[in-house]
Amino acid sequence: MIKQQKIKIKNAPEVLRIIPLGGLEEVGRNMTVFEYQNQILIVDLGLQFPDESMPGIDFIIPNIEYLTQHPEKKILGVIITHAHYDHIGAIPYLLDKLNYPTIYTAPLSKDIILKRQEDFSYLKKPHIEIINHSNQVTQLGPFSLETFHLNHNIPDTLGLALKTPVGTIFYTTDFKFDFHPIADKPADLSKIANLASHGVSLLMSDSTGAENPGHSISEKTIMENLDTIFAQAPGRIILATFSSLLSRLQQAIWLSEKYNRKVTIEGYSMKTNIKIAEHLGYLQIKKDTLVDWKTLSQSDPKRITILCTGAQGESEAALIKIVNREHKNLRIQKGDTVIFSSSIVPGNERAVQNLKDDLIKQGAKVYHYKMLDIHASGHGFQDDLKMMINLTKPKFFMPIHGHYSMLSAHADLAESVNIPRENIVIAQNGQIIELTSESIKATEKFVPTNYVMVDGLGVGDIGEIVLRDRQTLSRDGIFIIIALVDRKTGLLYNSPEIVSRGFVYMKESKELLQEVKKLTAEIISRCTKEQTFNEIYIRNTLRDEIGIYLFKKTQRRPMVLPVVMEV
Amino acid sequence: MIKQQKIKIKNAPEVLRIIPLGGLEEVGRNMTVFEYQNQILIVDLGLQFPDESMPGIDFIIPNIEYLTQHPEKKILGVIITHAHYDHIGAIPYLLDKLNYPTIYTAPLSKDIILKRQEDFSYLKKPHIEIINHSNQVTQLGPFSLETFHLNHNIPDTLGLALKTPVGTIFYTTDFKFDFHPIADKPADLSKIANLASHGVSLLMSDSTGAENPGHSISEKTIMENLDTIFAQAPGRIILATFSSLLSRLQQAIWLSEKYNRKVTIEGYSMKTNIKIAEHLGYLQIKKDTLVDWKTLSQSDPKRITILCTGAQGESEAALIKIVNREHKNLRIQKGDTVIFSSSIVPGNERAVQNLKDDLIKQGAKVYHYKMLDIHASGHGFQDDLKMMINLTKPKFFMPIHGHYSMLSAHADLAESVNIPRENIVIAQNGQIIELTSESIKATEKFVPTNYVMVDGLGVGDIGEIVLRDRQTLSRDGIFIIIALVDRKTGLLYNSPEIVSRGFVYMKESKELLQEVKKLTAEIISRCTKEQTFNEIYIRNTLRDEIGIYLFKKTQRRPMVLPVVMEV
Repeated sequence: MIKQQKIKIKNAPEVLRIIPLGGLEEVGRNMTVFEYQNQILIVDLGLQFPDESMPGIDFIIPNIEYLTQHPEKKILGVIITHAHYDHIGAIPYLLDKLNYPTIYTAPLSKDIILKRQEDFSYLKKPHIEIINHSNQVTQLGPFSLETFHLNHNIPDTLGLALKTPVGTIFYTTDFKFDFHPIADKPADLSKIANLASHGVSLLMSDSTGAENPGHSISEKTIMENLDTIFAQAPGRIILATFSSLLSRLQQAIWLSEKYNRKVTIEGYSMKTNIKIAEHLGYLQIKKDTLVDWKTLSQSDPKRITILCTGAQGESEAALIKIVNREHKNLRIQKGDTVIFSSSIVPGNERAVQNLKDDLIKQGAKVYHYKMLDIHASGHGFQDDLKMMINLTKPKFFMPIHGHYSMLSAHADLAESVNIPRENIVIAQNGQIIELTSESIKATEKFVPTNYVMVDGLGVGDIGEIVLRDRQTLSRDGIFIIIALVDRKTGLLYNSPEIVSRGFVYMKESKELLQEVKKLTAEIISRCTKEQTFNEIYIRNTLRDEIGIYLFKKTQRRPMVLPVVMEV
Repeated sequence: MIKQQKIKIKNAPEVLRIIPLGGLEEVGRNMTVFEYQNQILIVDLGLQFPDESMPGIDFIIPNIEYLTQHPEKKILGVIITHAHYDHIGAIPYLLDKLNYPTIYTAPLSKDIILKRQEDFSYLKKPHIEIINHSNQVTQLGPFSLETFHLNHNIPDTLGLALKTPVGTIFYTTDFKFDFHPIADKPADLSKIANLASHGVSLLMSDSTGAENPGHSISEKTIMENLDTIFAQAPGRIILATFSSLLSRLQQAIWLSEKYNRKVTIEGYSMKTNIKIAEHLGYLQIKKDTLVDWKTLSQSDPKRITILCTGAQGESEAALIKIVNREHKNLRIQKGDTVIFSSSIVPGNERAVQNLKDDLIKQGAKVYHYKMLDIHASGHGFQDDLKMMINLTKPKFFMPIHGHYSMLSAHADLAESVNIPRENIVIAQNGQIIELTSESIKATEKFVPTNYVMVDGLGVGDIGEIVLRDRQTLSRDGIFIIIALVDRKTGLLYNSPEIVSRGFVYMKESKELLQEVKKLTAEIISRCTKEQTFNEIYIRNTLRDEIGIYLFKKTQRRPMVLPVVMEV
């Protein structure tokens, strides 16, 4: 936190500044600023999901103080590389504050962004331009942008080749190389090589898979394994995956068509994404394949595929509602085959285990990615990453996207394919990187990147203190003492009121409460004897002494909150 | 919860009852009751660690109502299979309530149990008898017990061959087969085969690894990989693992001796376990190998090994103190090699990632089990489990230890090696299993197994309500309104006091608070106009209306707690 003060930064004329506002110490919250002579390009506006130390928080978005505090800097546009929430999720919260710069992206991302914006009825419709045409060059101030096609697990993922006055920067975003992708073309290696042939100053490349040896698994392998499951399934197939994992959804639709199954979709976001992708021609679905549940419910189970959300055990998603018998139509039945076609996001392991257990108890056969390759990561492994470095042959290298251990592993990889260590920069969030035609430098200067948390309608109003209070409350609860002091006598006006939640079950702790009431009376009489009525002094004394008393009796430390009022 | 009532159970004369009080729907809390004509043998008294839905809870212990409510049943003894906390951890909480039955176990478990009991000074010293001598037969009422040696990741792990009037039961506890174990002998296959040669009625076997194909990795492989790391380490080696993982500690000690390093131990429980194991001759340590840090601090880093706890990112353990610069002596320095020699317990992934990131940032080289086999599970994989079934050739089979998906996978394995499906019982916690010489039956009868939670000094006093309150408090905090009502006018005596924690940052929400105060005054004046002062009615109206108001303004649902007092 120390590093995050507002700082004055002089503009050196021939220096390009790269400022990662997120994505370098975590997975998510991706946003990078490219700045040349006060002209700014932004790449991605993503969100991050909170961890267990942030109870109640919906998500975290990038801190854009650097931009809002420098109105003299001109934002030329926002480039969106693909339509995952860790790259587009902060748009409804931040675009407004940035005065609606034009968004440049590919068609699928455009439609998904526009659709999501509709949930925020008070916001303007963003202006979005399409930039993925072949050989299209987009001129934005001093920058000239070309894109190249990459594989990820959503179509229309754009790699960026950004010509700047100090040299060309390749920015990969999340990617992998897949020679047999589904519902997508292979990454455009020749375009990458061509664009790179004029010389690449800096490669900024996805590090999420940098700790995994080998090549990432092709969607073709996934397809073969799914085919085996489809061929054997004795009844309905329920495939749970991320709602944006369009390649997996395409696979399930093709296999359903092959095995003469109709498909129904459960989950609002999944339905929306399929509709958008189908409309754009990114999904191939035969006319009669998709049906609603009403049409299907009486069919032979072997003719039914259900695609749904909830592979992470999310409490609001379709799959958990089905298992908990809360879904309006669907129940698990004996003979169902349930396929978890996704990795488990850290933190969700227990929820997924419970879900699996319940499915099996209810008679389903469950397949998950530890048993069989039925999910492929969207991120290239070490060999993919080395291939990207070899294709682009950059002078300088900067690993992006991922935890420090991943960035560090990626830096080691780059060194192993002959990028000199001194040409590699592992940066931190907010750190200002200076690129010239000759050099790269991670400066000691930082812009603010502390967490901006979204909680309900509040954006950025939850800080460290509120979070710490939530943690304390969740561990041992709260213990409130309300004491009215008679202004004439300085003694308790009546028996103090005690309210407690999350600490002990009150009905079973009468004796403890009696003792606390007695102690409260003693403390107040002592305090008012020592000096005239001093609310703060009484309150602090009550908090300290009753806190110690409760800890001695229970070994728990509830938040002790005395309220003292004179009447 | 519905199933857990006190029930009357008639004793059929030739029936053995098996009642798992824990361990069948989770990992941990292992405790099984064997009952024949009101005579009871208990196997293990373990605890379970809480998940994220149980904030503040220290751990969960088995529910022993079935035993305490039936004093007519005689407890013949408690058999402890090995000294892991999920098998011994509940002893200090439950032995007392069971009137201190004799514990039967192996020497290492005995000493670890006695040492831990010292932390509970108000308890009696348990009476413990040793039962792992070769060919020793322990007669306990109608039961006759022999043990056989198994591999796990702690020495002295006992498999049980329990002769009962209805047939012989094999009970494996957590185990694997390791032909090259460290600080241990291989599992005693010939004794297992010999004991089984007289016929096995029922095999109860560990399911934790039942979803993993192949054989579990041998400690020999781990040793070879650790050797490679030790051979290359340019400076100090810091190896973090579980404090009870004695085989791993032995490996690190041998390798340190091989590479001429002295060893220092950081972490109280690890020190204690090493002392106990060394005293029993279970660890081989040369006279000068173990030294304290003071002696070591000035040595050549290449001569130093530090063994410590904290591989799970636990906030109180040595490794995190070192990284956070809170350790009294140790800091990470460039050239350190840190080895995470343990799996990650689900729920700890983010803490471990943060720890790894910090270590790398501070200059350490980090090795973890995803990069290299430097940790082996203590649980047999599918081929080990099939081998156990083939060695014992049981008539009936009951998978134990693990989540339902593991039990179910283990049942499938058993069927694949020709145990008929109708002879396999997948039971639930608390379910009464009836075994006769001819049959096995999972009855519809259940004994109570609902969670007993330990929180500080409280055992079992935290229930659903307190936990739910903690969850609510952690999500959106608490909002307390204290309103004094003038008994003469029925109006507010003074401006209501508002205290809130974990909801909004109060200083920045003055307007919201003003509005709530106004609303409070309105509600009270309305309520006291409608009828005479009715505290409960006013309180409920305040809670509902202010709750709705706050949600509308913030989309958050803090716990609203009105306190209304007449003055």
